[in-house]
Order: sequence, then structure tokens, then C-alpha cells
Amino acid sequence: MITGGLGFIGSNLAIRLVQLGANVTVVDACIPGCGGNARNLDEVSNDIRVAPFDIGDSDNVRPLLKRVDVIFNLAGEVSHTHSMEHPARDLDINARSQLLFVHECARQLPGVRIVYTSTRQVYGRPEYLPVDEAHPVAPVDYNGVSKNAAGEYHLMLTRSGQLDAAILRLTNIYGPRLALNVPCQGVLSVFFMRLLLHLPIEIYGDGRQLRDPVYVDDAVEALLRTGAAAKLQSRIYNVGFPEALALGDVAETLCRIAGAAPPVYRPFPHELSKIDIGSFATDATRIRRELQWQPEVSLEDGAARTLRFFQERLSDYLDPAAGYPRCALPRAAGLDKAPAVA
Amino acid sequence: MITGGLGFIGSNLAIRLVQLGANVTVVDACIPGCGGNARNLDEVSNDIRVAPFDIGDSDNVRPLLKRVDVIFNLAGEVSHTHSMEHPARDLDINARSQLLFVHECARQLPGVRIVYTSTRQVYGRPEYLPVDEAHPVAPVDYNGVSKNAAGEYHLMLTRSGQLDAAILRLTNIYGPRLALNVPCQGVLSVFFMRLLLHLPIEIYGDGRQLRDPVYVDDAVEALLRTGAAAKLQSRIYNVGFPEALALGDVAETLCRIAGAAPPVYRPFPHELSKIDIGSFATDATRIRRELQWQPEVSLEDGAARTLRFFQERLSDYLDPAAGYPRCALPRAAGLDKAPAVA
Repeated sequence: MITGGLGFIGSNLAIRLVQLGANVTVVDACIPGCGGNARNLDEVSNDIRVAPFDIGDSDNVRPLLKRVDVIFNLAGEVSHTHSMEHPARDLDINARSQLLFVHECARQLPGVRIVYTSTRQVYGRPEYLPVDEAHPVAPVDYNGVSKNAAGEYHLMLTRSGQLDAAILRLTNIYGPRLALNVPCQGVLSVFFMRLLLHLPIEIYGDGRQLRDPVYVDDAVEALLRTGAAAKLQSRIYNVGFPEALALGDVAETLCRIAGAAPPVYRPFPHELSKIDIGSFATDATRIRRELQWQPEVSLEDGAARTLRFFQERLSDYLDPAAGYPRCALPRAAGLDKAPAVA
Repeated sequence: MITGGLGFIGSNLAIRLVQLGANVTVVDACIPGCGGNARNLDEVSNDIRVAPFDIGDSDNVRPLLKRVDVIFNLAGEVSHTHSMEHPARDLDINARSQLLFVHECARQLPGVRIVYTSTRQVYGRPEYLPVDEAHPVAPVDYNGVSKNAAGEYHLMLTRSGQLDAAILRLTNIYGPRLALNVPCQGVLSVFFMRLLLHLPIEIYGDGRQLRDPVYVDDAVEALLRTGAAAKLQSRIYNVGFPEALALGDVAETLCRIAGAAPPVYRPFPHELSKIDIGSFATDATRIRRELQWQPEVSLEDGAARTLRFFQERLSDYLDPAAGYPRCALPRAAGLDKAPAVA
């Protein structure tokens, strides 16, 4: 089972699992703003079951859990900016639905292996580089808090013997099926979107902040190794590229591969600076040692493959006539209403 | 402002603040099961404003935030057993309403001092004793996850300059106004409730697990010092008694002070053993050094004061004719429904 299997990483994982001969069920409610796209599974649509439910909808999820061997739990909202404007929505998607889901998994499939995709954002502004798994959790946005809480639910149920969970803390991932039409999902989807719309790439600040992007096939390999390991030595694994690059250099590389003009540098927007984490570099020693994972695809290769994919299938992801994609969520909305708690 | 000010610790804090001449607003929705009791504020009811709103009800909370100097944020569900049977309710109360509340505080009162009461339960089963603030967060129940997430929201908004928050991680607190009629709130309210109903105290297991109970006036003093400090050196403070005692010895002391028969030992119930944390002892060095706090009231003194209070006012807390109080929540309910997230 793959939750969030219509999303960017989830769909790449689903296709790979079908290629490997697995029987795959995708659970994905395609919540607006989260990046799900039904076209992502076009090439395997006859070989896969897609259940259009929220993972917190226990009555509908329960029957799907029968005969599940491994759960790849990728459903969620990854946008930091969405979380700052709609904090309760972020909590509902990332923590409340996840809580209901893992609670149901523990009841129906006690001890099941479940791999949850978290984010390096839970570390916040790094106290040191590269960041290993012992680095304090100190997020600088609501999204980091809710993603971490969901991870804690997995770990708590593992400590009490009800699940066999692992958390992957992913750095920036890029590749085919990036949600180009969700510009709030991260800097790399914006870069590729702008290249494909023939717009200049814009860098906020001096572009010297470090990033360590991983190509999606490598991220999928990390998920598979974590899901398949006979016994996990650890419960939390960082996933990032061993060598970090300046974000400006990442952008220059993408522009070069795309044959586009070099990036333009802009002042850092004030509202983003509050949740900016500065430089980030991953220490992925643990997953290399324990699961023999390391990324195989260079940025040049990965960028070329990504551009090739989207050049063939751009209309599944962007409407070039419509120009720059708009955020799926209203901006600066009033605060979400509190639910009844009784 | 005191959230949860109709509860056990909140009401003791409210009464002390009125005695000190403060202008106090209590926000408390008296959610069934959380231990709020309107009788708790009887002696100050003319000197205090009580707003019967959920703290996540931003429209009603917003006007109350005008001219607030310090927020003592005690609202929440503290029952571990409630959380295991109603996990989404636990998240809604402890994380969702808290998120909406701190988000509103940050908007209306940027930089305000806010003291949030968390729990030693976030540490889970201690890896070492005594437990200092550097101990890993590793809760063994849903309640520990949601309480920790609420604390993380406070800390995140403090990191980004929007609040000036501190988290107190409280050990077992006891004293006048304990929620005797909420038997799921903790071992000490059960002990006092049974003594006052002339029932034998029951100890699960051999009674050798360590606990370090703090009398409520001392906990209130810790809250006041944290709220009043000109500048906080730290953001997380443990609050516990410097010497831990075996739980059996705590019970023996209470029985002796009450003139009751000694405790009875029972096998540990299986469903509780999964969320039992074994021995706990607090390292409260940080709050002693930085805020000069240490408990003043011995267990003997505190127990005597507690029994005296309840002997005079038992009918405000328990109906002896009704016998053992029943849990306010249905047991073993089906899983809470997921909310709409769109």
C-alpha cells in the first residue's frame, strides 16, 4: 500500500513496484494543494488499484488493509508556505489523518512495516552541517511541527510493539512527476516549472545557501530498501545527497542542461525569510551503513531525465497557455475554524 | 490570562494571582473528561472573568487577548488512558486547539510571554535517571505526542520571533482541587479519591517504581517565576521534586496521614503496562539555577493540606453516595471520525 501514491514521489514508487511485480494499492484523496495528479499513474493504471479516500477515513481504509505486507506512507502536505497560511489545515492533513491512519494500521495489522516520509524541515535551521539524525528537532514552520508529530505517532506505536515503523527524513527530491503546478511545494519544482515555461529562474538572496537534491529514483530506492529490510537497526534515516551544492550552482546547472539563460538573483522576500533554514547538507551515513543506500544519479543526469520527461508530457502537468500556475489555496485566508472536540 | 483555569492547577494559579492583585481572565471550555470544575474558583468568583470558550475558538478568544500581559497556557487533556481510547479527540484538544490558540496569540500579541504546561510523559520510559531536559522525547502514548506537538508549536513561534514561550514539563502534581472525579487523570488523584471515599489504595505491581510528586502551590510558584522572569535563559524546564520516592512509599505516607489502612498490592493490568513508564525522577537543576525555584512543601505537609481541603469541600468534588466516579468518556469507542480537510 502506498498512501499519497498519486503524488510526485508516491507515483514514482508505485510504478517501480509494479515493475517489480508487486500488487499495489494506492490511497490518495487528491487534496487540493498537496500535489496529487491522476495522470501520474497513467502507465500503470491497469495494474494498480487507486482508492480515492483520505487516509484518516478509517471506515474506507480498513478493508483495504487486508493482506497488505508493507505500507509506504507518503500522504501529506509538504508545503511550508501553505502551512503558515493555513495552519489547522496543515495539522489536519499531516497529523490528524496520519494519527487515524496509523491507529487503524496498528489495529488491523499489528507489527506491520510502515515507512513514513518525513522531511529535513523538522531540523529547522541547522546547528551544524552536515545534519545527522541526532540533530535536534527544531522546525521553523508549522509544517515541520505537524510532520514531526506524525513521525512521533509512528515511533510511539513502534515503541509499544504495535507497528514496525521507519521514518525517512528526505531532503529536496526532484524528477519526473514533480508537481509543477503547485508552486508552493519547493524550490526545485519552481525551477523546473520556470524552465519548462521558458521563464528565467529566480534565486532569492545570493544563492550560496547549500542544498543536496536527490533524484526521485534514488529516493524510491531508499524507500524500497527501508520497506524490505528484514530487521531495521534504526527508526529514523536521513536521505540526502552526499555532496551539497550552492543553490545558485544547482540553478546554473539546470539552466545549462535546459539550454536556458542563467538564473536571476532577487532580494529574499521578507515573509519567506522567517521560515528559511539557510544552508542544509545531509549526513546520510546511517542509511548508507545500515541499508547500503546511496544515490546513483548525478544532478546533471537527473536534470536531463526530468526535462526530457516533462517535455514529452508537459500538458499533463502545466497549461502553458495559462502561464504561471496559481496556488490551489486561497492566500491569507482567515484562520481555519476549530472543530468540535467533545 | 489562564487557559484551563477551571482545572486543578489552573484554578490554584488563578486564586494565587488574584491574591497577588492581578487582573485574571480564565478561558476554559470545561470539556468533559479534562477535569474543569466551576467550583474550583468559588472563592474568587467576584474577582475573575471566566470565558467559557475552547481556546481554539479564535473569534471568541481574540477580544479577550487585548491587554493581556502574560499567558499561562494550561488547557488540555492530561489523561494517557483517554488518549489511547480516543486518539483523535486527544489530538484535537491538545494540538489542534493549541495551534489555533498560539497562532492567534502570535497575531494579536506578538512577542507575548506564554508559559505552557507540558508533562514528563513526553520523555516516555526514561533512558537514565534523573531525567533532565536533554533526555530524548520518546512518549509511549498518544497524549505524550500531542502534548509535545503543542509545545513544539510554542517553540517554533518563539524561534521565529513571534512568541516568548517557555514549556514546563511537570511531574505528578497533587493538592487541593485535584480532579478527584476524573479517575483517568493520574495515580495521585486516584489515591486521594480512594482515601476520601474510605476505599483501600491499590498499587499496581510491587510499588517500587519511583515518582517525585510536587505539591500544587510549588507548581504554581514555578509557573509564576517562569511567567515573570525578565528574560528566559531556556525554553524548556522540568518541574519535579528533588528526591524521588517509591510509589508504594508515597501511598503508605498518604494512608498514614489519612489514618487509613495501608495500601493493597495488585498485579499490573495488561492494558496499562503498555503505556507505563517505570520509574521516573526529575532533574530540576535547570529551573533551580535559572529561576531559583525549588519545592518547599514536603509530601507529608502537602498530603495533610490536601486531605484537609477535601474533607471540608468533598461534595464539590465527589458524590460519596454515588461511589467510585465513572470516566466521563465512553470506553472502547469506535475511532473518532476524520474531519474534512479541504
